[in-house]
Amino acid sequence: MTTLYGMADSGNCYKPRLLMAKLGIPFTNVEVSSHTGDTRKPDYVAKNPNAMVPLLELDDGRRLAESNAILLYLAEGTRFLPSDRFERALAYQWLFFEQYSHEPYIAVRRALLTFPERARDATPERLATTLERGNKALGVMEQRLAASPFFAGGYSVADIALYAYTHDAGAGGFDLGAYPAVSAWLKRVEADPGHVPMDWLP
Amino acid sequence: MTTLYGMADSGNCYKPRLLMAKLGIPFTNVEVSSHTGDTRKPDYVAKNPNAMVPLLELDDGRRLAESNAILLYLAEGTRFLPSDRFERALAYQWLFFEQYSHEPYIAVRRALLTFPERARDATPERLATTLERGNKALGVMEQRLAASPFFAGGYSVADIALYAYTHDAGAGGFDLGAYPAVSAWLKRVEADPGHVPMDWLP
Repeated sequence: MTTLYGMADSGNCYKPRLLMAKLGIPFTNVEVSSHTGDTRKPDYVAKNPNAMVPLLELDDGRRLAESNAILLYLAEGTRFLPSDRFERALAYQWLFFEQYSHEPYIAVRRALLTFPERARDATPERLATTLERGNKALGVMEQRLAASPFFAGGYSVADIALYAYTHDAGAGGFDLGAYPAVSAWLKRVEADPGHVPMDWLP
Repeated sequence: MTTLYGMADSGNCYKPRLLMAKLGIPFTNVEVSSHTGDTRKPDYVAKNPNAMVPLLELDDGRRLAESNAILLYLAEGTRFLPSDRFERALAYQWLFFEQYSHEPYIAVRRALLTFPERARDATPERLATTLERGNKALGVMEQRLAASPFFAGGYSVADIALYAYTHDAGAGGFDLGAYPAVSAWLKRVEADPGHVPMDWLP
């Protein structure tokens, strides 16, 4: 059976859990937490040299890292990856936007404020920078979602990737009330068939 | 004709230039530099709300942002994207690794040390963090390249993306001599037919 190494309260790990739930793919979930240092232990680094979760391990032992790469792999040939070439490219665009311009601020600020082991990194300067850049990312999303119900054609991996940390942005001190199109999109994502919450496990 | 909005000394912008040169795709290059603030001016932000380069504009006016999304779009159906499903997923994995674990340290340290407008951000702490994390990324690459000539099957978009800033990592104060497998891979990338240097323009 497919194995997912992941962390319960990580949005990056929620992404493949949500897509596998929707696709009905059975998998074994193995908790590997950065809170306890498990992602940096030798037996895990032997599996993923970049020492991060999530990590997907196939039946035959082959392994794939990077949450959004796992989404693209699992979505191939399904309704979660646009069949039109340009819409598919837009899905790629938003996946890279999520990892470069969104997660490092919105997810990181949530971690700084809520993960005890990150408390010493939560300097006033760091909190100000992540707030400013996270709001910039939400503004870019707001502009897109005011013009389009989803990021790249219909509901796709781009929506799954951006939902993962946006839906919990309040924990990072972001005010989603200032982004009505984003707030309406969160509800559309939750209404898509087979949606499961972040704490769902197989 | 296709237009590429980009910045001459940006590795992210070099990626699509290199791939379009290899594919023989004619394009118009429009210089939009963050040095001069051009990426933040209203007429450019109207084209890319995330205010970054590169940006690809097709004949019909449709636009695509994010360097690695542009690579995936252009590479579809060519030798630069693996035809095997799992190797293609590995290419995705390394593209996301590049944007999350490599570029923010190796490219950013080069910018801190060589771009005049970034000099005030080049604090000792920032230089130490980017050095440590950049070396971690190079170590992950070294381990992969000691076992495989390229990142995902044959030469692919993953190699183009990782070459862009790795080949100039010395400008960021990284010692590539400590990474023999990476150094040998740089030469293999440069030997691939149709290679052009970073300052090449159509």
